[in-house]
Amino acid sequence: MKHVPIHLDRLIKELSRLPGIGPKSASRIAFHVLKMRYDETERLSRALLDLKNSIRDCKKCGGISEGDICPVCSDETRDRGLICVVEGAKDMLTIEATGGFNGVFHVLGGLISPLDGIGPGDLRIASLTERCGSEPVREVMVALNPTIQGDATALFIASVIQPLSVKVSRIAHGIPVGADLDFTDTATIVRSIENRREI
Amino acid sequence: MKHVPIHLDRLIKELSRLPGIGPKSASRIAFHVLKMRYDETERLSRALLDLKNSIRDCKKCGGISEGDICPVCSDETRDRGLICVVEGAKDMLTIEATGGFNGVFHVLGGLISPLDGIGPGDLRIASLTERCGSEPVREVMVALNPTIQGDATALFIASVIQPLSVKVSRIAHGIPVGADLDFTDTATIVRSIENRREI
Repeated sequence: MKHVPIHLDRLIKELSRLPGIGPKSASRIAFHVLKMRYDETERLSRALLDLKNSIRDCKKCGGISEGDICPVCSDETRDRGLICVVEGAKDMLTIEATGGFNGVFHVLGGLISPLDGIGPGDLRIASLTERCGSEPVREVMVALNPTIQGDATALFIASVIQPLSVKVSRIAHGIPVGADLDFTDTATIVRSIENRREI
Repeated sequence: MKHVPIHLDRLIKELSRLPGIGPKSASRIAFHVLKMRYDETERLSRALLDLKNSIRDCKKCGGISEGDICPVCSDETRDRGLICVVEGAKDMLTIEATGGFNGVFHVLGGLISPLDGIGPGDLRIASLTERCGSEPVREVMVALNPTIQGDATALFIASVIQPLSVKVSRIAHGIPVGADLDFTDTATIVRSIENRREI
């Protein structure tokens, strides 16, 4: 575009790299920034760097933390016998937000995906088996999405954890609460039938 | 949310203030930032401040500029007899991007909207009449959106500019190029009939 100030163009390009932001949204946001007060922009700019400077991986679960050990891992009231395995730190926070889980977490940092060249060695699976050996773990609950990669990773984890006499479970996939059978896709219905429970 | 690091929470809140970004997108972007390299984050953070530090309003047209006068206003090859009136600087860049306009611009900074308490005095209309008096302006072309506010503002501009013996025109609203009559809304078809031209 002719006559676009270079700094405006640069911000639009940087914003376009973010997930879910295309060139149109980026340009809309950049023009919004032009109208923002200077201190508001400074706050956003600083928040970006503060996040990078303050957050590191929890040495125990691999989740995000401001110290060496994350608040969940350092919480003495949590049930250390139940480890919930998630793909990323975001999933950990999503489950934490429900308030319905009192165990601890283990963040894999990805899923097994041979097509992308990601094998079990690229994920935090060795440290999971280590935790199952050194801590009094009763159950490993796999909370991975029901995709091909999620299923493969769940099966692999079961194959390495079960020999340690630790129970491996997987969260239920079925009809969402409040949804209608009529509007549910067939794959979900098949899963919900497979996973049926006695009442 | 319990156990969300404070800096993560702060970035999500700051991002949620941006247009088109809800809490879910903000959280997705914040987790993406966590995975970004430090220098990439720094580039984005700096681009935000650089924009604020470098851009100001052009003293002539009110568009965005890195100097006192924007590149369009300082371009000697532009036709100063034709002023295109737009709502904001974004519209100016949109029209510039087409490459099909060789006049100069005047940015109003908004539209007349009595319900929002915005009257003609809140817009850059006085400086437009001033330009029409001091410069050799032949025609003022109003390029405002065909909304109630856009229509009202266009009529008001015509009422103050026409007495200065300057022609006031408005860009055509009608069927978009490549669109089908069958799929065009009635308001657009009515406009396109009103604005019909002899061929």
